[in-house]
Amino acid sequence: MEQPRIAQYLIERLVVLGVQHVFSVPGDYVLGFLHQVEQSPLRIVNTCDEQGAGFAADAYARIRGLGVACVTYCVGGLKIANPVAEAFAEKSPVVVISGAPGTKERVKNPLLHHKVREFDTQLRVFEQLTVAATALHDPRTALREIDRVLAAAARYRRPVYIELPRDMLDTPATLDHTPPEVPEPSNPETLREAVREAVDMIGAARQPVIMAGVEVHRFGLQDALLQLIERTQIPVAATMLGKSVIAEGHPLYLGVYEGAMGHEEVRAYVESSDCLILLGCFMSDINLGIFTAHLDPAYSISVTSEQAAIRYHRYDEVRLDDFIRGLTEAGIERRPPDHVPHPEAPARFVAEHNAPITIRRLFQRLNAFIDDDTVVIADPGDAMFAGLDLFIQSRTEFLAPAYYTSLGFAVPASIGVQLANPKLRPLVLVGDGAFQMTGMELSTAARFGLNPIVVVLNNGGYATERPMQDGTFNDILPWRFSRIPDVLGVGAGFDVHTEEQLDAALDTARASDTFSILDVHLDPSDTSPALQRLTATLGVRVK
Amino acid sequence: MEQPRIAQYLIERLVVLGVQHVFSVPGDYVLGFLHQVEQSPLRIVNTCDEQGAGFAADAYARIRGLGVACVTYCVGGLKIANPVAEAFAEKSPVVVISGAPGTKERVKNPLLHHKVREFDTQLRVFEQLTVAATALHDPRTALREIDRVLAAAARYRRPVYIELPRDMLDTPATLDHTPPEVPEPSNPETLREAVREAVDMIGAARQPVIMAGVEVHRFGLQDALLQLIERTQIPVAATMLGKSVIAEGHPLYLGVYEGAMGHEEVRAYVESSDCLILLGCFMSDINLGIFTAHLDPAYSISVTSEQAAIRYHRYDEVRLDDFIRGLTEAGIERRPPDHVPHPEAPARFVAEHNAPITIRRLFQRLNAFIDDDTVVIADPGDAMFAGLDLFIQSRTEFLAPAYYTSLGFAVPASIGVQLANPKLRPLVLVGDGAFQMTGMELSTAARFGLNPIVVVLNNGGYATERPMQDGTFNDILPWRFSRIPDVLGVGAGFDVHTEEQLDAALDTARASDTFSILDVHLDPSDTSPALQRLTATLGVRVK
Repeated sequence: MEQPRIAQYLIERLVVLGVQHVFSVPGDYVLGFLHQVEQSPLRIVNTCDEQGAGFAADAYARIRGLGVACVTYCVGGLKIANPVAEAFAEKSPVVVISGAPGTKERVKNPLLHHKVREFDTQLRVFEQLTVAATALHDPRTALREIDRVLAAAARYRRPVYIELPRDMLDTPATLDHTPPEVPEPSNPETLREAVREAVDMIGAARQPVIMAGVEVHRFGLQDALLQLIERTQIPVAATMLGKSVIAEGHPLYLGVYEGAMGHEEVRAYVESSDCLILLGCFMSDINLGIFTAHLDPAYSISVTSEQAAIRYHRYDEVRLDDFIRGLTEAGIERRPPDHVPHPEAPARFVAEHNAPITIRRLFQRLNAFIDDDTVVIADPGDAMFAGLDLFIQSRTEFLAPAYYTSLGFAVPASIGVQLANPKLRPLVLVGDGAFQMTGMELSTAARFGLNPIVVVLNNGGYATERPMQDGTFNDILPWRFSRIPDVLGVGAGFDVHTEEQLDAALDTARASDTFSILDVHLDPSDTSPALQRLTATLGVRVK
Repeated sequence: MEQPRIAQYLIERLVVLGVQHVFSVPGDYVLGFLHQVEQSPLRIVNTCDEQGAGFAADAYARIRGLGVACVTYCVGGLKIANPVAEAFAEKSPVVVISGAPGTKERVKNPLLHHKVREFDTQLRVFEQLTVAATALHDPRTALREIDRVLAAAARYRRPVYIELPRDMLDTPATLDHTPPEVPEPSNPETLREAVREAVDMIGAARQPVIMAGVEVHRFGLQDALLQLIERTQIPVAATMLGKSVIAEGHPLYLGVYEGAMGHEEVRAYVESSDCLILLGCFMSDINLGIFTAHLDPAYSISVTSEQAAIRYHRYDEVRLDDFIRGLTEAGIERRPPDHVPHPEAPARFVAEHNAPITIRRLFQRLNAFIDDDTVVIADPGDAMFAGLDLFIQSRTEFLAPAYYTSLGFAVPASIGVQLANPKLRPLVLVGDGAFQMTGMELSTAARFGLNPIVVVLNNGGYATERPMQDGTFNDILPWRFSRIPDVLGVGAGFDVHTEEQLDAALDTARASDTFSILDVHLDPSDTSPALQRLTATLGVRVK
C-alpha cells in the first residue's frame, strides 16, 4: 500500500478544508511545491509582492474560513510577517507555507542564499506570530504535524506556519498518524452551569444588551446569533470589528458601539445596561473606542473562543457556539424592549450641481450604492472610521482591520475576498497614504479578472495623524491615481471633484468588468466626525 | 546638572555617528519621536511603505556606515523584518528604532491597537534578526542600552533594534552610564602569531591569491587592501558581494570569482592557487557560485570580522583591519606575477541601426555609460548576474544583495544611496517582477529631489526561475513602466526596443534632474550567459 507523500498530503488536506486559491510569489525554494500545487485543484494567485499575498490570504480566510499564503524562504516569508501578525491579532486562520532549504542541504550549516542567521530563524519568527508552527523534516511525524497545525488554525481561527524543506516534498510519509482532531467539545456540566447563571442574570436584569464581536463572524455564528436575538428579543450592538455580523436594518440592532467615538445614543444605551452579554468580543482599545468605553464587569457576561467569564469569575471548557445555542434554547422570557436606538437608514442621495465633494456626502452616496452583493473593505484611517457609519442593509460584508489597524490592507484584501466569493463585489475604501503602500496590487486584481471598485480618499497625506502631531512626515507625493490604468493597461480611472462626478463614476464603475479607481479629491481639513473624536482622544495620549 | 532625556540622547548619538537621514513611515506610537527628530539636525525621509524605508536604510548604511529605519509598533516594524534580515545576512549596520506603547500603558496587559500577542512580540522577532536588541523601559539603564546596541552595530556591521515606549521619550536618564565602548582591539600576541604564520605560508607559496570580500567594503578597508596588494604584488579577485572594493582597472585585479558561473580563467587561476587569502569573505552559495567553487582549506587563510582561520586552525581576537595592516607591514617579498587574467575594459559602444536591444548589448552600452560618479545598484536576478560583468573603472560603487538575494531591493536602495552620498548618481538595474514589488518608491525619490536612472529589464515575468521550474506563477501583468511618470507627476519614461533608443534614452536620462525609467523590452528567452550557467546549476537542486 502506497504511503502518501508529504506535499501531496498537505495539498489534499487544504482542498478538503475548502481552500481553492493559494496566494504566492514564486521563489526557488518553493518552486517544486508550486509546481505540484499547479497540478492540483488549487489555483495559484501570484501577487506583485509577498505583502499583497499575505493580506489577500488574510481576507480570503475571513470570508472562506481558511486562507493560504505560499512563499519562499526568508526573502518571501519575512515579507509577510506583518500580514500574518494582523491575522493573529484579528483571528484570521491563514496557513503560511514556506519553501525552505532541503533537510539534507542543511548538514554542516553552510551559508545557503536567503539564510539570515540560523536555518530555523524564520521558524522562530513565526512561532511568535502563529498559534502553531512546524518544519517538516521528519517523514515519521510530517502528516501528524500537518494535521496538528491545521487543527490549531481551525480551533483558534489564527495563523499557522508550515515549513517545507524542498527535498521533503516527495518523501513518502508513514501512515500511522492520528486523523485530524475533532473540535474540543464544551464540558456539558460547566456549560449547563454557565448558561444557567447567565439566564438568571438576564432574567433579573432591567435592560440586557448583547454586544456582538468579531468571533461571531470568524466562527460563522451569524445565524445562531440571529436566532438568539429573535427568540429572546434582546437588542444587540456590534463592536467595530464585529460590524456586519447582523443586518443593520434589524429592528433590534442598536448600531456600532465605539465608546465616545461613536453615536451618543448607542453609547448611552449600552453603558446603562445592567446585563451586557459580550459574545466573541475583543476588549481592545480602538475596537472599544480608545478606552473611552465604560463597561463594568459586575454587569457583564463575556464569552469568546478562548474563555467564558460571568461577572468576576471564569468558566473553562465553554465553547462560544455552544453557549449561544444554550442561551437560545434556555427559554429566556421574551421582553421586547420599549424603544431602542437604531441607525438611520440612508436617505436617497441626490447630487447637488457643482457641489465639491465632502467626506460626509461621499459616504452618503456610498450608502446608497452598496447592496447585498457589496463587500465593503476599509483601510485604517478615515476610510475605516467613516466606513463604520455606512448602513449595512442585510448580508453585506464589512471588512476592516479595526484592531490591528495595519495600513495597506484593503486593496490586496479585495483580491482575496472576490476570489473567496465571486458573488461579492468589493468596494474598497482607502486613504491616499495607504494606497501608496500596496495599491499597485490592482495589477493582480486585473490579471485575475477581478473588478473591485477602489475609492481613494485623497486628502494629501496622513490626515489621521495630523491632529495628533503634524510634520512634513505626514506629507506624501501627490499621485494621479486615475492614471494607474494607463500603467497597468487595464481598468478605469476617475477624477472626482464634485458630487455629480462621483455619481457618474460610481455608475460607470458598477457596470465595469475591470477594476475602477476613483481619485476622490477631498479638502485636506475635511475629516469625518468619528475621526475628529478619535484623534482628539488619541492626541492626548500620543506624547 | 540636567540629565539627558532618552530620545534626545539617542538622536545626539546618531548625529555623532554620522547619520543625517532617518527613513520612516509615520504612525501614532512613533509620532512624538518623529517630532523630536524633525527638530534635530536629522532629516526625515518618509517612504511609501516601510519596506522601502528598510531597504533604503540598508543601502544608506552600506554607503555611510550607519543607517536608521524609524517605524511604528508592529504594523510598521514587522513590515521591515525582511530588509532587516537582509542587512543581518549581508552585514549592513541598520538601526531600527520602533515607537511602542508606553511603559505605563502596558500595565494590566490591555489590548492596545497594533499589538500582536504579547507586548514584547516585536522585540522577540527582532532578537532573531539583529545582533543586539533593547526596549528602553528603564531610565536607569536606557543610555547604557543605547550605547550598547549602537556599539554592536559598529562592531559587527549588522542591524540592531531599539524599542522606544512613547512615554519614555522625555524621561531624564541617569548619568552614570558607561561611555561607548572602544572597538575591541586584537590580542597583540595572537595577531603577531597569525600574521607570522600567514607570511610563512605566502612566502612558501607558488601562486598566492587574495580574495576580497564584502567586509572590506563594510569596514572601509578598501585603501588598506590596495596598499597590501601594491606592497606585495599579490593578485586579487573579488567575491560577488565584494565586487567594486577594488578598481577593476587595477593591473593586479583578476575579476569576480563566481565558481563555474563566472569567467573560466578567473576560476582556474583562483582554484589553482596554493595560498588563497580570503579577506572578509562570506562562504555562501551564490556568493561562491552555488557550490561550484572548489576551495581547499589546506591552502586557505581566511580572516573576517568574526574569525580568523589558517589552514585547519583558528585564531581568536584577530581583527580584520589589524590583520590586513599586519600583512602589509610584514615585509613580504614582492613577486609580481607573470601574467594574470584581467577583465576586459569595455569597447566603445556604437548603436546598430534598427537593432533590437539584447541583454548582452544592453550591458555593453551600460559599460560605456558608467563613470566614477555612478553607483550601480542591481536587484537579484539577471540584473545582478549580468551586472557583475560590468567593468567598474575605479571608485564606482556596485551594490547588490548577492547573498540574501531579496527581490525589490534596488529602487528603494537608490534613495538611501543618493542621500548617503549626493555625489553618486544611481544606475538601478531591476527586473520587471522585482520592480512590481517596490518600484513605486520612485515616488519617494521624486519627492526628495533625487534622480536615479532606473533600467527595467522587461522580459515578461520571473525569467530567472523559468529554467528551474516554469509555470503560470512566473507570469506577471505587463506594466507600461514608461507611464509611471504620468502617475507621479514627475520623472521621465522611455520605451526602449532598439539600441538607438537605448542610446538616446540614456543620454536624456543623464542630463535629467528627476528620475528616469527605461522600460527595456527584452526577448523573454534572452538571458545573460552568467544566468544561463546559474540556472542550469540551480535547476538540478530545485526538486
